[in-house]
Amino acid sequence: GMEVSCISTGQVFAALGLMCTESVPMRRRRVIEVLQGLIDLAAEFGKMVNLGRVRGSINGEPRQAVEDRFVSVARELCDYAADKDVTLVLEPVNRYEIDFVNKVEEGVALVREVRRANFRLMPDVFHMNIEDVSIGGELARHAAHVAYIHLADSNRLAPGRGHIDFDDIFDHLAIVEYDGWVSVEILPKPDPDTAARQAAEFLRPRVDLYNSRLMALRGEPCP
Amino acid sequence: GMEVSCISTGQVFAALGLMCTESVPMRRRRVIEVLQGLIDLAAEFGKMVNLGRVRGSINGEPRQAVEDRFVSVARELCDYAADKDVTLVLEPVNRYEIDFVNKVEEGVALVREVRRANFRLMPDVFHMNIEDVSIGGELARHAAHVAYIHLADSNRLAPGRGHIDFDDIFDHLAIVEYDGWVSVEILPKPDPDTAARQAAEFLRPRVDLYNSRLMALRGEPCP
Repeated sequence: GMEVSCISTGQVFAALGLMCTESVPMRRRRVIEVLQGLIDLAAEFGKMVNLGRVRGSINGEPRQAVEDRFVSVARELCDYAADKDVTLVLEPVNRYEIDFVNKVEEGVALVREVRRANFRLMPDVFHMNIEDVSIGGELARHAAHVAYIHLADSNRLAPGRGHIDFDDIFDHLAIVEYDGWVSVEILPKPDPDTAARQAAEFLRPRVDLYNSRLMALRGEPCP
Repeated sequence: GMEVSCISTGQVFAALGLMCTESVPMRRRRVIEVLQGLIDLAAEFGKMVNLGRVRGSINGEPRQAVEDRFVSVARELCDYAADKDVTLVLEPVNRYEIDFVNKVEEGVALVREVRRANFRLMPDVFHMNIEDVSIGGELARHAAHVAYIHLADSNRLAPGRGHIDFDDIFDHLAIVEYDGWVSVEILPKPDPDTAARQAAEFLRPRVDLYNSRLMALRGEPCP
C-alpha cells in the first residue's frame, strides 16, 4: 500500500545527457518527448514529475538566452501535464552540481516567469544549507510555490546525523501550514537499510507531531 | 603595519598540478622542493604554510597507500620547517572539491599519524557546514590541533550573509580559550571591496568582544 509521490527524471540527464536548455532545437524536442512520456507515467503514479539536473545549465552562455529556452520548454511541458492533472517540480541544486537555479529564491523567480499553476518547486534542505540565507525561513517565505521537500542532513546522511535543525524547519512549515510531501534523499551510508532506518526513526515522530499540529490548527480531531 | 598570517600554497596545485600524494617519486620530490621554498618564505613572513588541495587525493587508489605517501611527505616537510619555527596547517575541504580529508575529524586522524608538533589544522567553517556534525562543537573538541580558522558564511559570502551562527562558534572557541588566527576566505561578491567591508563590519565587534572575554578569563586588564 505504498504511494508513489513523484516520478524522478534524473536518468534523462544522467543516461541520455539531455537538458531542457539545449540550444539545438531538435535536442530540445527530444527532451520534451522523453519528459512527456514520464508525465504520462505520472498521470497514473503520483501526479508529479521533478526537474533536477535535466533542467540544464548556463555553461558560459548569456543567462537570459538559457532562461528563455528553459521557460519555453517548461511551459510546453506544463500545458501537456495540466490535462493529466500532473505538476512539474523544479529542484534548486547547490553550485557544485549545477550553475542554474541554486537558491530557492532563484527557483521562485523562474516559477513566476513560467506562470503555470502546475509548475512549482521541490527544495532540498541539503542544497539549501549551502545556498540559502536560511532553511526554515526561506521554506516558509516561499511556501506558496513549494509542492515537495527533500529532507537530508547537512552532510547528506539521514536527518539527525548532521547539524540541520529539523525542528526549526517543521516549526516554520507549521506556521504556513505546509501540506505537501516530504521525502528523504540521502547517501546510502553506512548502508542503505541502516540509513533508511535512521531517517525513519528520526522523522516519524516529528512528522506525526507535525500532522497533529496541523489538524489542531484546522480544528480537526486527532486521528 | 599589516601582519602576514600564513603563506598559501593554492597555486602549487592550481598552477603546477603537484600534490603531496603523487605516486611517482620524482614528482613527490618536486612538490617537496616547491613547498620547502614556501617554508623558507614563511620563515620570514607568518611562520605558517597551509596545505589545501596540494595535499592530494585518493582518486580510486587504496586509501592506505595514499595516506602513507601523504604522511611521509608531511613528516619530511615538518622536519624541514621545524628548524625555521614554521608550522604546516592542513585544511579539510568539502567533498565536492576533494576526496581526501573532508571532515575536521579526518584531519585530526592524520595529525595524530604525522606526529609532528608543527603539523596542525586549518578548519574552514564553510567546508565544515557541509561536512561536520557541528561547527562550534567540532572546533572546540579538536581545538588542541587547530592553529588557524577560515571564516566564511554558509554560502561562502561574508560572515553574516548566510545562516552560520558565528556567535555560537565564538562561544565554543572561548570555552577552550582558542588563541590562534581567524581570517576571512570568501567569494568576492558583490565585489571584492564590498565583501571585505561586510566581513570586517560583522567580525570586528565580535573579535573585539572575544578578545576581551579571553583577557578576562585570564585575569588580564582590558586594553
